[in-house]
Amino acid sequence: MPSLAGLFFCLIMNSELKNLKKLIVNQSLELDCGKTIKDFPLAYETYGILNKKKNNAILAFHALTGDQFCTNTNPITKREGWWTTAVGPGKAIDTNKYFVICANVLGGCMGTYGPTEVNPETNKLFGTTFPVITIRDMVRAQKHLIDHLGIKKLLSIIGGSMGGMQVLQFASLYPDLAYSAIPIACSASHSAQNIALNELGRQAIMADPNWKKENASPDKGLAVARMAAHITYLSKKGLQEKFGRKLQEKGSLKFSFDADFQIESYLRYQGATFVDRFDANSYLYITRAMDYFDLEKQFNGSLSLAFKNTKSKFCVISFSSDWLYPTTENKEIVIALNACGANVGFVEINSDKGHDSFLLNVPEFLRTVSEFLNSTYNEINNEKRI
Amino acid sequence: MPSLAGLFFCLIMNSELKNLKKLIVNQSLELDCGKTIKDFPLAYETYGILNKKKNNAILAFHALTGDQFCTNTNPITKREGWWTTAVGPGKAIDTNKYFVICANVLGGCMGTYGPTEVNPETNKLFGTTFPVITIRDMVRAQKHLIDHLGIKKLLSIIGGSMGGMQVLQFASLYPDLAYSAIPIACSASHSAQNIALNELGRQAIMADPNWKKENASPDKGLAVARMAAHITYLSKKGLQEKFGRKLQEKGSLKFSFDADFQIESYLRYQGATFVDRFDANSYLYITRAMDYFDLEKQFNGSLSLAFKNTKSKFCVISFSSDWLYPTTENKEIVIALNACGANVGFVEINSDKGHDSFLLNVPEFLRTVSEFLNSTYNEINNEKRI
Repeated sequence: MPSLAGLFFCLIMNSELKNLKKLIVNQSLELDCGKTIKDFPLAYETYGILNKKKNNAILAFHALTGDQFCTNTNPITKREGWWTTAVGPGKAIDTNKYFVICANVLGGCMGTYGPTEVNPETNKLFGTTFPVITIRDMVRAQKHLIDHLGIKKLLSIIGGSMGGMQVLQFASLYPDLAYSAIPIACSASHSAQNIALNELGRQAIMADPNWKKENASPDKGLAVARMAAHITYLSKKGLQEKFGRKLQEKGSLKFSFDADFQIESYLRYQGATFVDRFDANSYLYITRAMDYFDLEKQFNGSLSLAFKNTKSKFCVISFSSDWLYPTTENKEIVIALNACGANVGFVEINSDKGHDSFLLNVPEFLRTVSEFLNSTYNEINNEKRI
Repeated sequence: MPSLAGLFFCLIMNSELKNLKKLIVNQSLELDCGKTIKDFPLAYETYGILNKKKNNAILAFHALTGDQFCTNTNPITKREGWWTTAVGPGKAIDTNKYFVICANVLGGCMGTYGPTEVNPETNKLFGTTFPVITIRDMVRAQKHLIDHLGIKKLLSIIGGSMGGMQVLQFASLYPDLAYSAIPIACSASHSAQNIALNELGRQAIMADPNWKKENASPDKGLAVARMAAHITYLSKKGLQEKFGRKLQEKGSLKFSFDADFQIESYLRYQGATFVDRFDANSYLYITRAMDYFDLEKQFNGSLSLAFKNTKSKFCVISFSSDWLYPTTENKEIVIALNACGANVGFVEINSDKGHDSFLLNVPEFLRTVSEFLNSTYNEINNEKRI
């Protein structure tokens, strides 16, 4: 019997998502694929208070499966926001001090225009008829939000993983719109291995016979895709320390295909819970956008040209055990920024927690972000006082 | 419409597999799961000629998706044997000099007793009613073949990946049955990450609605499992050098979910061709055996006890870019062998080709194997001359 979790998700989404905070972008946006969209919703949240000078705003970009609810409780999933470790009162991205903006990306499934939205021309859900979007499209859409909020220049732009890609793209598109930029655990273009891993997830979804069926959702395929991705978010050492060969039930092996090892149950749980909160087609669209991202190619093979006009001060952060976006790939961004004379700092944080480190309580990382934001804030306000 | 490739495979297998060379083991074998099997087929091949002293025999163990056809053309798949780079006249494992034996493992799908065989009690295919087997079961079954061939002591036992696990298990079970042992790119027990990756493959198969259906086979799930595994067999650097971001068709991106990048087509091809030659249930059983393998646990937590009676001379080989069975895990075997005073050498081969290096033309690796086998052969024959 096909699981109906995804279908249930769709129904909930369609009713509850209506109440989310949204900007209806009434200007037209020409997408990289050539199609133009207009009057489209961009769901977003803000945390903290925008000061009078409007110079304390931070735009936080989410990663593949994130959304606008970066802190507090997500009202749809009833779970903690994805960056609760970093965003909140007194935290590294201190909402007592900063005004944090976070929008669901184009192609997402938390209220922003994407495959789970209704196509006004057909009155049916877009599904796979939604246009293929890019990181640049996502960033351009969010620029409308910044304009809408009346912010001339952001204190900072920040994000990890695909969020970091958006930071790079934003800095490149709008070289004078952010005092500082913090790309974390990311890359200026996907490696062959990362394309392969995303393709694996897409194939798992597309292999599910419920994909593209009306009144059904490819839950099993999406769960497999999530399991695959989840393995890549953790380091070999981290997995070994947390799970090793610990058995699910004490005693001996079951000699069956039930979950014997704790790591198996953990993975199955990750897959099963993911389908309740995410749409399979959004997963296709967003992974596609990540694979297509190639900032070097946008500038005819020169990554440093992407940043030649930037006025932002950069802090590039990588994690020692991140094998998905390893330090070498983050350093290529630093090299390009240096080559065009940008103001750039680089920190590799020691952590066994793999790519997921940016979402977890890694004190050295959080301190780095906190101090960099503080120094940016102080610099701006000191300048303005003179 | 469900693909019928797997079903086609089953039909071919059932007719053509009958002609394969097999030993019917007419003794009973008590499996680790507690069940006993008897009168079961063990399909095998030999290459070269067993000399009069019967001291030139090498038992080569295959990996997860291998079979008994380690060289020449596989008569079932019509493809080259899986270890043609290493096994053959004048090659590292020189069939002009050595007598090479290779058997399809228990649980496999190339004629040996496994889920694609008919259960004599029901006259139906075993499928998932086949007992869960272990690496120890596989090795014990192959001991019958060595006895059948009248070989008292093997010149060497050799294998990579799961083949290496069988080498370790054989050396431990039969400490005086091989003059030398060459475990390659393997581990004495699966890490949490490796269990996770195998579980991912199993979940992909079990998510396919054709799994366990009569007259259908979970081709799509098996293809996804193969894609996942294939990514792990190659190194990040190797993938980058071979594929990078090369497009399938020159020109621009397609803005669709078709294969844009060459790495995507390559993966899809790997998945699609695999289902023609492999059975999904065999994949479940063999990955399960790999995950269950824990030589340390067999000896109450002491890996060196596993080898305390060994008389074999070991050559442990790892590859620098193998992240599935990294050098550190291979070194643990070396440390355990040293701890019990065994004769052991260790070589880490520099290669960008990842785990698959043992199957590829990596000259330094092949030379290492060739020279080690030569020295073993010379030692034995010099001793015997005295």
